[in-house]
Amino acid sequence: MSYQKYKAALQEIKDLQAAQAVLHWDMETFMPAKGLQQRSRQLASLGRLAQEKAQAPELGELLQNLLAQKEQFSPAEQRNLELSWEDYQEAQKLSPQFVEQLSLLTSKAQAAWQKARQAKDFSLFAQPLSELLAAKREEAKIRAKAGQGHLYDSLLRSYEKEATVARLDPIFEQLSSGIRQLLAKIAAQGTPPKKEFLNHRFPADQQWAFSLELLEQMGYDFEAGRQDASTHPFTTSFGAEDVRITSRIDEEDLMSCLGSSIHEGGHALYEQGLLSSEYGLPLGEAVSLSIHESQSRLWEQNVAGSEAYWQHNFDRLQSLFPSQLSGVKAQDFYRAINYLAPNFIRTEADEVHYHLHVGIRYQLEKQLIGGELEVDQLEAAWNEAYERELGIRPDNPQLGVLQDIHWSAGLWGYFPTYSLGSLYASQFFAAAKKALPELQSQIAQGELLPLRNWLRKEIHEKGRHYSSETLCQQLTGQGLSVEFFLAYLEEKYRKIYNF
Amino acid sequence: MSYQKYKAALQEIKDLQAAQAVLHWDMETFMPAKGLQQRSRQLASLGRLAQEKAQAPELGELLQNLLAQKEQFSPAEQRNLELSWEDYQEAQKLSPQFVEQLSLLTSKAQAAWQKARQAKDFSLFAQPLSELLAAKREEAKIRAKAGQGHLYDSLLRSYEKEATVARLDPIFEQLSSGIRQLLAKIAAQGTPPKKEFLNHRFPADQQWAFSLELLEQMGYDFEAGRQDASTHPFTTSFGAEDVRITSRIDEEDLMSCLGSSIHEGGHALYEQGLLSSEYGLPLGEAVSLSIHESQSRLWEQNVAGSEAYWQHNFDRLQSLFPSQLSGVKAQDFYRAINYLAPNFIRTEADEVHYHLHVGIRYQLEKQLIGGELEVDQLEAAWNEAYERELGIRPDNPQLGVLQDIHWSAGLWGYFPTYSLGSLYASQFFAAAKKALPELQSQIAQGELLPLRNWLRKEIHEKGRHYSSETLCQQLTGQGLSVEFFLAYLEEKYRKIYNF
Repeated sequence: MSYQKYKAALQEIKDLQAAQAVLHWDMETFMPAKGLQQRSRQLASLGRLAQEKAQAPELGELLQNLLAQKEQFSPAEQRNLELSWEDYQEAQKLSPQFVEQLSLLTSKAQAAWQKARQAKDFSLFAQPLSELLAAKREEAKIRAKAGQGHLYDSLLRSYEKEATVARLDPIFEQLSSGIRQLLAKIAAQGTPPKKEFLNHRFPADQQWAFSLELLEQMGYDFEAGRQDASTHPFTTSFGAEDVRITSRIDEEDLMSCLGSSIHEGGHALYEQGLLSSEYGLPLGEAVSLSIHESQSRLWEQNVAGSEAYWQHNFDRLQSLFPSQLSGVKAQDFYRAINYLAPNFIRTEADEVHYHLHVGIRYQLEKQLIGGELEVDQLEAAWNEAYERELGIRPDNPQLGVLQDIHWSAGLWGYFPTYSLGSLYASQFFAAAKKALPELQSQIAQGELLPLRNWLRKEIHEKGRHYSSETLCQQLTGQGLSVEFFLAYLEEKYRKIYNF
Repeated sequence: MSYQKYKAALQEIKDLQAAQAVLHWDMETFMPAKGLQQRSRQLASLGRLAQEKAQAPELGELLQNLLAQKEQFSPAEQRNLELSWEDYQEAQKLSPQFVEQLSLLTSKAQAAWQKARQAKDFSLFAQPLSELLAAKREEAKIRAKAGQGHLYDSLLRSYEKEATVARLDPIFEQLSSGIRQLLAKIAAQGTPPKKEFLNHRFPADQQWAFSLELLEQMGYDFEAGRQDASTHPFTTSFGAEDVRITSRIDEEDLMSCLGSSIHEGGHALYEQGLLSSEYGLPLGEAVSLSIHESQSRLWEQNVAGSEAYWQHNFDRLQSLFPSQLSGVKAQDFYRAINYLAPNFIRTEADEVHYHLHVGIRYQLEKQLIGGELEVDQLEAAWNEAYERELGIRPDNPQLGVLQDIHWSAGLWGYFPTYSLGSLYASQFFAAAKKALPELQSQIAQGELLPLRNWLRKEIHEKGRHYSSETLCQQLTGQGLSVEFFLAYLEEKYRKIYNF
């Protein structure tokens, strides 16, 4: 009986969060311009109510009572209760006053960031960023656990429970060094692919239609979702039976839409694969941001980034753009879209340089939170890191330290999950190839459902039952390793660059 | 200070209601099929939370405290407090248990209604309808006021505070009798207009584009709203700066889309004209359903139902459908779309017969609530009333007693507001013509903003400051009168039918 009460309480919170997600989706897709002000306050109210309920003392008491008699529940119910209790305790750590102060500082920082970015002037952002940084340091202290290593660990934990500086430092070191070695080999011995035929106009309607076909092929369920256009692509879920994605179209850049749709499609398959019966409960939620990103990256990099994928799909693409792609072969196309070059903007980076961008942010965040770097040194530190790691130096902060929304939005500790996602993706994909011996030939024939179904069974339907690391152990027989991703890159670019 | 607290409390309730409205809009427009179940529970949670807050004892205490010192507030603030106190007391009348029981009975009745309608078998609906009727009678008793005449008055009041059987009986009698006389004259002396040229296919895209142009012409603000497609057209507001309408398209019936867009556009202008500064407060709300309907009807019947309107707009319409409307003159078109004929379905009725449909429902509801009619007699009573009033007898209940959603949805007392809306519309429009001497020629030139601005100033921006009757007195110098609408019909159809 009181498990039902617990379930009802959590599902009511989820209803409020889902409503928030619908309002947010609408804001990014269909909302008329003048609706912004009232929409913002509606979102704030829903967020406040959901948080009140998540922190309510009655919920804490209920959880404690249930846990005191937990042997009467099924293992799955016990796991839900344990995870909810962890979440509840984590939510208690910050007082409502502190949360409100953070929210105010974030609003201020976001407004300043937008202005500074437009004006290409970091100094306009420095003061609000310093205030927000001080608050995030404070948050990190409040959230810190006994025996915790680095202060930054407290923030990393919000997005990936098991992430710590002690674990991430060697990962990013190995990743950066592997990438630098690969790039050095390519520079010394590689032949860059031709990509001039991508410099055409690719009309929006055909791009969109093709992106829908690719999603269908992946097994994205259009009766439980839809794709719309927005400035920044995203995935949002209102429950496993209504998971929507957005994409963008650039007629000068064919892969912008296709890449976004496939990436978001990977996130969406995870959400569509969660158990509806566990709606609102931990076992109906994704493990972590890293594992979420592993699903988008697995489809984007390991599936759609493979030659086999384009062997199957290129004919159709060519039939949609016959003049633009006239005389081009599948292999030429595959090589062209994998052309590597350093650039300033993370979200436009190729899959190799991408992780150098992320690594820079990880190091800077760690130093900022740890007190080894202050905001007035940040722009210089950023530019030096880009010069050192990518060999390019941004000549204005719009192309540099002001490019990402994360810091102004208070999302400190988030960036590393982007790289962890790629690493998990390659490691999971290696396990998929073992479990599905026909996988490569299936991909080459456009048969993607066996892979989707394997991911669904092995990852999606498990919800938060296992931690990221345990899941990785179970699936791959070992903890997270950088080797799989580096091997993927080495094998792929050796062929493309002929070295 | 505590007026601010009151305002924040009401605006939080409004935020929840607006979120509900967004989720409902999305459900009717873009939601994928499988999303229904989770969406339903999200809507239910938002509704329950909004109701809890509207009935919270703290809100009652706050209102009483503020009203006890009301002289310190501005007249507008005092009016807000008074109306909120009325609303609060009304909300207190039904216990949460009773509201929940009503909601359960309604869900049951709606499911049964859908089945019965599809099977064309009233008996499948009879039992759940009886149970719901018993509950609505109970609700009417609980809501009854001292000295109240008919039990039905309690339900009428939910949609139009000043509506009572004592007031509505003579109104519907005069309205029906006037309409019957007009129809008799037409039958005896009139010549029906030709309408064969409407029997064409009118492609959807042009219809939609034209409907957007007509909305623009009315002064509907597309930066504070949008039009989408749905099965049943409706208007919804998430605050005055985001007011959306939906329309439908039938390629065989040109006026279905245009008529719906104009009608909903009228509702939307009301919502867009409410004061954003009074968001969530009574002075930021529409007076009543009747006055709301007066705004849709004024645009649909008195503006777009006039020859002047089509003198201006027909050329553009003809240019969109050159082959279908080849050789047709504006006057021919105007006459054709005003062809009168009795039919079974209220929502497809012409503006003359429409009120006979409404009158029948009013009489039946009154008798059902009053206990003079029972559910097992309802189908027969319906069919007899149609034979008597419209001269046609439905041969199955899908075309008869099962056509409307209202009774199964618990919306008892709602129907009369449809006719009151038309009556107020004609009376308000007469006042507008006095206030704006150039109005007719402005309409003939497509200049509709003077009318919109007059309505905004005289009605929309006043919110709930005045009751329907007081507003009518102020605007027209007298209480609601059936004469204006009957005069409108007489003058219009005398010309169209040449008698």
